[in-house]
Amino acid sequence: MNVAASKSQESGVALGALIGVGLGPGDPELVTVKAARLIGEAKIIAYFGKPGRASNARTIAERYFSPGCEELPLLYPVTTEIPFEQPEYVDALASFYKESAQRLGAVLESGRDVTLLCEGDPMLYGSFMHMFTRLDQRFRVDICAGVSGMSGCFAAARQPMTWGDDILTVMPATLDEDTLAQRLASTDAAVVMKLGGNFPKLRRAMARAGVAERAIYVERGTMTGEKILRFAEKRDDVAPYFSMALVPGRGRRP
Amino acid sequence: MNVAASKSQESGVALGALIGVGLGPGDPELVTVKAARLIGEAKIIAYFGKPGRASNARTIAERYFSPGCEELPLLYPVTTEIPFEQPEYVDALASFYKESAQRLGAVLESGRDVTLLCEGDPMLYGSFMHMFTRLDQRFRVDICAGVSGMSGCFAAARQPMTWGDDILTVMPATLDEDTLAQRLASTDAAVVMKLGGNFPKLRRAMARAGVAERAIYVERGTMTGEKILRFAEKRDDVAPYFSMALVPGRGRRP
Repeated sequence: MNVAASKSQESGVALGALIGVGLGPGDPELVTVKAARLIGEAKIIAYFGKPGRASNARTIAERYFSPGCEELPLLYPVTTEIPFEQPEYVDALASFYKESAQRLGAVLESGRDVTLLCEGDPMLYGSFMHMFTRLDQRFRVDICAGVSGMSGCFAAARQPMTWGDDILTVMPATLDEDTLAQRLASTDAAVVMKLGGNFPKLRRAMARAGVAERAIYVERGTMTGEKILRFAEKRDDVAPYFSMALVPGRGRRP
Repeated sequence: MNVAASKSQESGVALGALIGVGLGPGDPELVTVKAARLIGEAKIIAYFGKPGRASNARTIAERYFSPGCEELPLLYPVTTEIPFEQPEYVDALASFYKESAQRLGAVLESGRDVTLLCEGDPMLYGSFMHMFTRLDQRFRVDICAGVSGMSGCFAAARQPMTWGDDILTVMPATLDEDTLAQRLASTDAAVVMKLGGNFPKLRRAMARAGVAERAIYVERGTMTGEKILRFAEKRDDVAPYFSMALVPGRGRRP
């Protein structure tokens, strides 16, 4: 399934390639050797971010940028006022992804490569995937795997997660409480992502599933300001979007 | 939960630290910058392997070894003739892990650090975890996250896995057919690991769950000899232990 050679335009001029580079969970040293090389070789570096804030992806990768590389920030529309289930939110995001793909496509059309930075693993809940599906048919797209946010949190929390025949369920806290409780109760190990404002709901679901006592809360895993505590010991309901809850498995251990 | 300082013996002599280093899915360039540094700094490097074969972990990491570092291979007992559900298998592994922890512990007692190489993510189904649980109470143990085998396979297969509210289930193919079929049918996305001799059973479970058509088979992802094909197009039942099946999610996509 790998595309070895660059695609060409009808005119015969070689098109540029999109290179999606996973950056890992946040610690710049958890970037892979390959990603560091690809970023260092890049002449045009694109990344997602929010207007008026430092892009998290850029912050992780900056030390590997080569001098004089061109930057292409893709800034999310401000949607903080709109609940994400609303059509307005979906429309705003759809327009943003379409326009971002057009901007990247225009550079690729000119025959130049673009390296697109991706936090964590590019293929798990990543913005990169929205560019990939829009550009993969027309252009060559290469993907460099990264340490996922959850793998970073396992190590930061010093928490073995799955043993032997354990089943691991990864779920976003955006699911409804019944679904969260049912899934937590019927798996050996779990990772719950995207906590943010969903924390009170998750606290109830954890209690219903009977797993709160062995769960761990990880905030900003591997990053500055990292905070790790037993889930049951977290008293407040304040959790950033990039926090996670881990429920370790207890399977077969020779 | 992090242990900042080395632990000391009653005599006051500082004990060595065990450093578990995730190596990623197989491509030596998918080692993190941090792992490459830790391996390069290591004076004693331990790794698991099988007698009479090159250790996969050593092969991935070797380019980062510093000249003159000492190697401590931990060689699994030969258990290929014993089914893993048998008490003999569990006993053989338990003895091996106990003895390996004793060997590592003896070095740590002498005040020297040991860097233990771990394929993939050290905290997911890893041999490292068996050393961690045996040594963490007595010694300082540091853990460096790695790209998981499955993240390597997502990128190698160029396959976005989870979107929006998708639930991802990670399960070993060693589970019984009914469990596999039920789990595959009730999740949005799935990763099935440790295929090996379980392939015919997984093929039946995939068909029963109705996901065979969109599943992908990945063999030796990111490694030499990598093979990626649609699951439905795989005609034979031969799969190495380190092969995986991926069922991509189809969730919300603005």
